[in-house]
Amino acid sequence: MTRVEILNFGDELLMGRFSNTNGFYLAKRLTAAGAMVTRITVVGDTLEAMVEGFRESIGRGPDFLITTGGLGPTFDDKTAEALSKATERPLQINEVALYQITGKYSELGLEMTPARRKMAFLPVGAEAVPNPVGVAPAIHLVVGTTQIYCLPGVPREMEKIFEQSILPVVVKTTEKVFHETSFTCQGLCESMFAETTEKLHRENPGIHIKSHPLGVGEEGKPVVLFHITCLGDKNLEEKMLRVVAELKTKLEELGGTITQQTRV
Amino acid sequence: MTRVEILNFGDELLMGRFSNTNGFYLAKRLTAAGAMVTRITVVGDTLEAMVEGFRESIGRGPDFLITTGGLGPTFDDKTAEALSKATERPLQINEVALYQITGKYSELGLEMTPARRKMAFLPVGAEAVPNPVGVAPAIHLVVGTTQIYCLPGVPREMEKIFEQSILPVVVKTTEKVFHETSFTCQGLCESMFAETTEKLHRENPGIHIKSHPLGVGEEGKPVVLFHITCLGDKNLEEKMLRVVAELKTKLEELGGTITQQTRV
Repeated sequence: MTRVEILNFGDELLMGRFSNTNGFYLAKRLTAAGAMVTRITVVGDTLEAMVEGFRESIGRGPDFLITTGGLGPTFDDKTAEALSKATERPLQINEVALYQITGKYSELGLEMTPARRKMAFLPVGAEAVPNPVGVAPAIHLVVGTTQIYCLPGVPREMEKIFEQSILPVVVKTTEKVFHETSFTCQGLCESMFAETTEKLHRENPGIHIKSHPLGVGEEGKPVVLFHITCLGDKNLEEKMLRVVAELKTKLEELGGTITQQTRV
Repeated sequence: MTRVEILNFGDELLMGRFSNTNGFYLAKRLTAAGAMVTRITVVGDTLEAMVEGFRESIGRGPDFLITTGGLGPTFDDKTAEALSKATERPLQINEVALYQITGKYSELGLEMTPARRKMAFLPVGAEAVPNPVGVAPAIHLVVGTTQIYCLPGVPREMEKIFEQSILPVVVKTTEKVFHETSFTCQGLCESMFAETTEKLHRENPGIHIKSHPLGVGEEGKPVVLFHITCLGDKNLEEKMLRVVAELKTKLEELGGTITQQTRV
């Protein structure tokens, strides 16, 4: 099982100025790739909060820790510094990063300044990961058994680097495949099938059954979305499909109507 | 300064099945009310992960800890149990909760079952907070100087309980008011004004200046969104507006064009 933590830096996320679309994107893509996202954390832009976020995540020892935000040239871009403090690896000029950054600004006809040069300072032992969209390179650092990747906060840069340089590395470590299916059921509220789902869950380890009440439908009856997932091989997927069939039968016996089936 | 942590429970959030709209909603509303959200954490539905999430958040001693999810009647609704373990307060039938739950089901013409009765078990010392939309009451528990509120994960239930029973309590503790303004600037990339914003930030404590690159606009020039915020009284707001005026002047001197002004 490949365990991944996501750590998003940004006061704008804590202020509710933007929703955490980066965390959502990464969670969806990593899950689909067969990895298990174990935690998503948002902290602010202060060095103290970022160092604490890094230390706690690294302390839990996930296989991958992916961060977003704080890689740019402005004063509040402090990810490299926070990673340096949290891992006790001093910042130094990374020649590959400097080469990438200098090349980008040279193309734009811009000279190097201290603010631009700042983006080339990475913790000792870190690698610069090319940014095909923007200027700031992403950072890759291995600490113990955790591979840390720090990505920019700008979504189009984050996504491109993730798809190009990180997802292929994650996929190599996952032997399992994520399977999911969902359907809606009308006419039952959660407490009517709570014992049924509990029993199915207990009897079928590895199969996750989640129910999400969607409110009352057009016909005045409660509607519940069921989301059934598993992470495993073909056999487990087949077991999941049998559980889904059994669940539907039981829901109908309880008086529910299966109203919509979506194979996601 | 009122410090608030948000803790969202849900495998569906870690799987990227849903975006964390509850966290986003709470962050926006709490910030607007003058509180400071210091962290947003998403953990899964296992008891272990939930207890760990509770312990860590409580350990940081925020004024409020607001959680969402895990209050319903199904087997994977474990918030009360996790709160009980994390705070070492045993679960017991809460008579107020039981009265509320029994009343709801009685209105619906449904009898009590073990799954329904489960929602009335709260940690010793906890209060049941009425849920005007759904069945499961929210939970209020004070631990040390932290007020813990556990809300349902269904957004319309969560929002109603938050607005009715929690926000008024938070507002009483905040002496400060959140102020924000934003505008976009065309023609400059971040590294061109990094020194300017750093200097303004250093000279004006309490005023936060964030820049978000939005990409290249229609005229082929980079567009950056500026978001300037502060948490304080009328004087600080006036200072913020002076900083905004100075920032705009400096950006224009650097060759930028202020393209859009939004008073949020």
